[in-house]
Amino acid sequence: MGNADFDTSDLKVVAFDVFGTVVDWHSGIAAEAEQALPGVDGATFALAWRAGYQPAMKQVMERIAAGEGGFTLLDELHLSMLEQVLRDFGLSDRLDASARRELSRAWHRLPAWPDAVEGLTRLKRKVTICSLSNGNIGLLTEMAKRAGLPWDCVLSAEVFKAYKPDPRTYLGVAGVFDATPGQVMLAAAHHDDLAAARACGLKTGYIERPFEFGRAQPKDVTPVAANNLHARDILELAELLGC
Amino acid sequence: MGNADFDTSDLKVVAFDVFGTVVDWHSGIAAEAEQALPGVDGATFALAWRAGYQPAMKQVMERIAAGEGGFTLLDELHLSMLEQVLRDFGLSDRLDASARRELSRAWHRLPAWPDAVEGLTRLKRKVTICSLSNGNIGLLTEMAKRAGLPWDCVLSAEVFKAYKPDPRTYLGVAGVFDATPGQVMLAAAHHDDLAAARACGLKTGYIERPFEFGRAQPKDVTPVAANNLHARDILELAELLGC
Repeated sequence: MGNADFDTSDLKVVAFDVFGTVVDWHSGIAAEAEQALPGVDGATFALAWRAGYQPAMKQVMERIAAGEGGFTLLDELHLSMLEQVLRDFGLSDRLDASARRELSRAWHRLPAWPDAVEGLTRLKRKVTICSLSNGNIGLLTEMAKRAGLPWDCVLSAEVFKAYKPDPRTYLGVAGVFDATPGQVMLAAAHHDDLAAARACGLKTGYIERPFEFGRAQPKDVTPVAANNLHARDILELAELLGC
Repeated sequence: MGNADFDTSDLKVVAFDVFGTVVDWHSGIAAEAEQALPGVDGATFALAWRAGYQPAMKQVMERIAAGEGGFTLLDELHLSMLEQVLRDFGLSDRLDASARRELSRAWHRLPAWPDAVEGLTRLKRKVTICSLSNGNIGLLTEMAKRAGLPWDCVLSAEVFKAYKPDPRTYLGVAGVFDATPGQVMLAAAHHDDLAAARACGLKTGYIERPFEFGRAQPKDVTPVAANNLHARDILELAELLGC
C-alpha cells in the first residue's frame, strides 16, 4: 500500500468498477428476489445469481474468440443466469417470461454504497470520473439516474466492444480522454480487475467492501502492496486524492 | 408543427444534437480565436472554421465507405480544419503546433446557451437525456463538465463507430436504452439531422437557435410541419414535454 508516496498531481481520470465497488448488488438483489419470490432466501438467491456471472462471461468470451458470437449485453446474460438459478432452485414455474425480465432488471436498480454519491461528487471537482463496467450503457445509466451517481461519463464494455479484463477496456479509457495510461486510475473492490489495469499501466486504487457478499460472508480486505492506493471507501479515496 | 397533438406519455429518451443546439459554438470559438490571435476578427474566423466541418466529415465518410480509413475523432478533424483556416487567413506562422492543438480544443470549452442547463435539468426528471453528437466522447464529457450539462449519459458517434446522419447513430440510441425508435426524440437546431432521425422512426423536436451563426447572420427558424415539436429553446421543450 503506497498511500503515503502516491503523487496525485498528474491524475486526470478515475474510472470505477461498479458492481460491488460503487453499488451493493448483494442487498439489492436479495431484496428484489424476496419481493418477487416470497418465501425464498434472498441472500442465498443473490449469491447464486452472481455466481453465474464468471462462467457466463467466460462462455461469451470463448465464443467471441472462436469467431462464433458477437458482443452480448449484460442485460441478456443476467436474464439467462436468472433462468439457470430458477431451474437450480426449482422455482421456474413461479415466474413467467415478463416477471423474469422484470426481475433481471433488478441489476439496474441496485442501491449505492452509503459513501458513493458524496465520494464521487467530491472526486469530480478535481478529476474526471467515469464508470468502467461490463454492464451495458443502458443498465449503468438507469442505475446512475436512480441512485444519483454523478458520473461525468458512463463508460462500459459496450463502448469498447470488449469486456474487462481485456486491455482494450482499460486502455480505451485513456484513449477516450486523451490521457496516458498512467494518468488514469482504476478504482475497484476486486484485485483481479486492478491487476489487469496495472498491467496496462494504469494506477490502481483498492476500495474495501468487506460486505460485498453480505454480512454473513465478510470478505478479506487486506491491503495488496501493488496498488497505489488502498481506501476504506470512496470518501476515503477522495481524501487520499486531495478532493 | 404538431405541438398541440403530440402524445408524450410513451417517450423514454431525448437525445440532443450538441453544437449549435445545446452550446453556442459561434460565440465560444470567436472569443477563443480573438484571444489566441489578437487582431483577428473572431466572428469571421469562427464561421470559416465551422464551414470546414461538412467537407471534412464528408471526406472521412467517403474514406470509410471506400474501406480506406477508420473512424476519426472530431478532435483530430478540428485540428486539421484549423490548420486549413490558418492557411486561408495567412496566419499559419502565428501559432506553433502546441498553440494550434490548444486552440483546437476550444470546442471542448464552448458555453451553453443560457436556457440549456435549466432546461436539461427539468427534462431529466421525467426522461433520460443524452447527447448524440459527432463530437468524440472526451470532447463532450469535458464540455459537459465545464458547462454543467447534466447528461444522464454521453452518447457520441464514437460509441456507434458511425457519424450522423448514419441510421446506426439514431437507432443506436434506441438500442442502448432498450427502447423503440418511437420512444426516442432527437432534439436539434438542424432540419437535416431531424429528417434523418425521423426516417429511422424517431420523434423530432426542433430547437430555434436564430443566432447560431452570430447576431450578424440570423438563421431562418420557421417551423417545419414534419417535426413533432417546435420549441424556442430547451426550456420550452421541457414545458412542451410536461417537465
